[in-house]
Order: sequence, then C-alpha cells, then structure tokens
Amino acid sequence: MVQIKYPNGIKKDKVNLMSHSNRGMNLEADLNDTNEYYLYNDIAIIYKKPTPITINKVDYKSRRDAVIKEAHFIVPSTTDYNGIYKGKYIDFEAKETKSTTSFPLNNIHKHQIEHLKRIYNHGGIGFIIVRFNKLNKTFLLFIKDLLNFLENNTRASIPYSYFVEKGYIIKEGLNPRLDYLKIIEGVVS
Amino acid sequence: MVQIKYPNGIKKDKVNLMSHSNRGMNLEADLNDTNEYYLYNDIAIIYKKPTPITINKVDYKSRRDAVIKEAHFIVPSTTDYNGIYKGKYIDFEAKETKSTTSFPLNNIHKHQIEHLKRIYNHGGIGFIIVRFNKLNKTFLLFIKDLLNFLENNTRASIPYSYFVEKGYIIKEGLNPRLDYLKIIEGVVS
Repeated sequence: MVQIKYPNGIKKDKVNLMSHSNRGMNLEADLNDTNEYYLYNDIAIIYKKPTPITINKVDYKSRRDAVIKEAHFIVPSTTDYNGIYKGKYIDFEAKETKSTTSFPLNNIHKHQIEHLKRIYNHGGIGFIIVRFNKLNKTFLLFIKDLLNFLENNTRASIPYSYFVEKGYIIKEGLNPRLDYLKIIEGVVS
Repeated sequence: MVQIKYPNGIKKDKVNLMSHSNRGMNLEADLNDTNEYYLYNDIAIIYKKPTPITINKVDYKSRRDAVIKEAHFIVPSTTDYNGIYKGKYIDFEAKETKSTTSFPLNNIHKHQIEHLKRIYNHGGIGFIIVRFNKLNKTFLLFIKDLLNFLENNTRASIPYSYFVEKGYIIKEGLNPRLDYLKIIEGVVS
C-alpha cells in the first residue's frame, strides 16, 4: 500500500535531524517495512490504515485527475494498524515518545483505547507498540495490561518501569525490522 | 468514525437524482449505518477504511490547524472494509453497478482480489458485496466463489445469474439496513 508520508514523514525528518543516535528510521517506517516482510513471506496480512481526513474542496475533472484542494486531518476512531495472523484478528496502535521515564497517555485517544478494549472482548488480539526513542527501546503492551494500568491509576502517563514489568521488548533486526509477531506467537497458538 | 463523503458522496447524489426508484441511500451509506448498528449493539467491530490519498502540500501551522492544500486519490491496495465478528477476521469490498445483467470486473482492482485471496488462505472471511442498483438487489459473494468464477472464465464481468446461483441475497431492512453478518453466521459458528 502506498502510505501517506505526511505529517508522519515530517516527524521522521525532524527526528533524523535532531538525533544522530536514532537509527535513522522512525517507528512507522519500521512497522511498514516489517508488515511488508510479513506480507511478502506470507506470514501475516497487516496494513496501516490511511490517515483519516475530511475533504472540503476537490477539483474534479475525472476520478483519475481529481485534485484535492482543501482537506483537514481528523481524529481517528480506530487504531492505525489491523489485519490477520494465523486466523486471528490483530489490532494495534504505535507511538513514539521522547520521554525517558514514562509514556504520556495523551498520545493515545480515549476512543482508540475503547476500540482496543472492544477488540479484546470480541476475541481479537489488541495491543500498543511504544518506542522510547532516546532509550532505543520498543515495547509491546497488550490491551489487557494497558487497561489494568488505567483502572488502577489516575496518572497521566505510564511509567517506563511498567513497560519493563508488563510489556515485551521488541528486538530490532535487519529484516524484519521489528518482529512483533514473535511476541504474539505464544498467544495465538 | 467520521467518513469521507467525497467522492462517494457525489456518486450518491448522482444516483438519487437519476433514479427515484432507488431507495434514497447508496450502498456505502447503508453499510456504514449497518456497521454502526453492529458496533452500537456490540455484535461486531467493522469499519470502512479512510480513502487512501497522497498529500503533496500542507499549510502546516500546527497539527490541529493543518490544512491540506494539494492531495491526490490513489489506488487502494486492500479492500474498503475490515474488522472482527465472533473472533473472526472479516474483510470485504462493496460495489454498486447500474448494469441489470452482469457485474463488470473492472470495478474491483486485481490487487484487491489478490488481497481477499490471501485473507481466505489465512483463515479470514473474505467476500464482496455487490448491489445491482436498478434491480434493487444486493448480494454477498464469498471470495471462494469469486475465485472459482475467475479461474473458470475469461469474461470481463460476472453474470447476474452467477450471483443468484452462488451468492446470498442481503435483505434490506430498517435497522440494520443490510444485515450481511446474518449470512456469515453459519460460516463462523
């Protein structure tokens, strides 16, 4: 799928400019590469959804030539990624943070958490992937553990230690970049 | 989810202007209503994906105020709808046709059929929903039967009779408008 490079593409450039310690790719690019790897090797079919927008103005000669002249980004109701792995429905949201101590919860919209909760209740596998950019650590946290935290805390962020305790480290590799399905494997089979 | 109303919204108006025999809503609107009904009643979680576009120019004061000034529609790699029902991964494409005799296959991109085939091979439930506007008939055709047709025919369209023979009529109702999951029920349980 051709991915929308903006505004995440811009974030990526910013990250690259700001930090040479960063490996040169952002989380979204790593996940897209990983999902392509899964698709190409017939392991799983997982896509990033297009960025939701509302379109106000279109120069509409034909569908092929149509140029969108005015549009706005809108708050997504669901997560960015979903698909199928070993017959199971997979659904997740991926976020990066510059913090070295905690993941600010305002990074994830409330209805995205509600969405993941519903997925969990319907037998799907829901989780978040959080990268602590400055620590070069990427975690997978299952929705169950995210909900447990939210039910027992009033904090506006999840401490790094909670990811260490309840989350799973996703190791970075060459190909696939982030083999997050390796963590799911035990849950599915 | 806030849906993009264009260019499908325009099609809808065209349909309404052209044909008073049409019930006044188009297939996409009917499916969105149905999916909202499923979500609200905790039956299934199925969403239409946002329309895929590439963004060329953005007036980017802040994420909140960002205005997309130039963007283009792109060919989707996947289908429009996916989600979960009774723990099963659901994936489908929906199309309308004015033809009364057959469904032209150029309505569905080749890679969308490839995508549905992959979904089927991975244990998901894939299908197409096709509405014959002038006949006021809407069919669900499972990917297996679509592939069977394609493998045994060189025609550029699927005859109406094939839908009658191999497909399943989706009855129109008030709420839900198009209870297509009723047809899936037997497959899932």
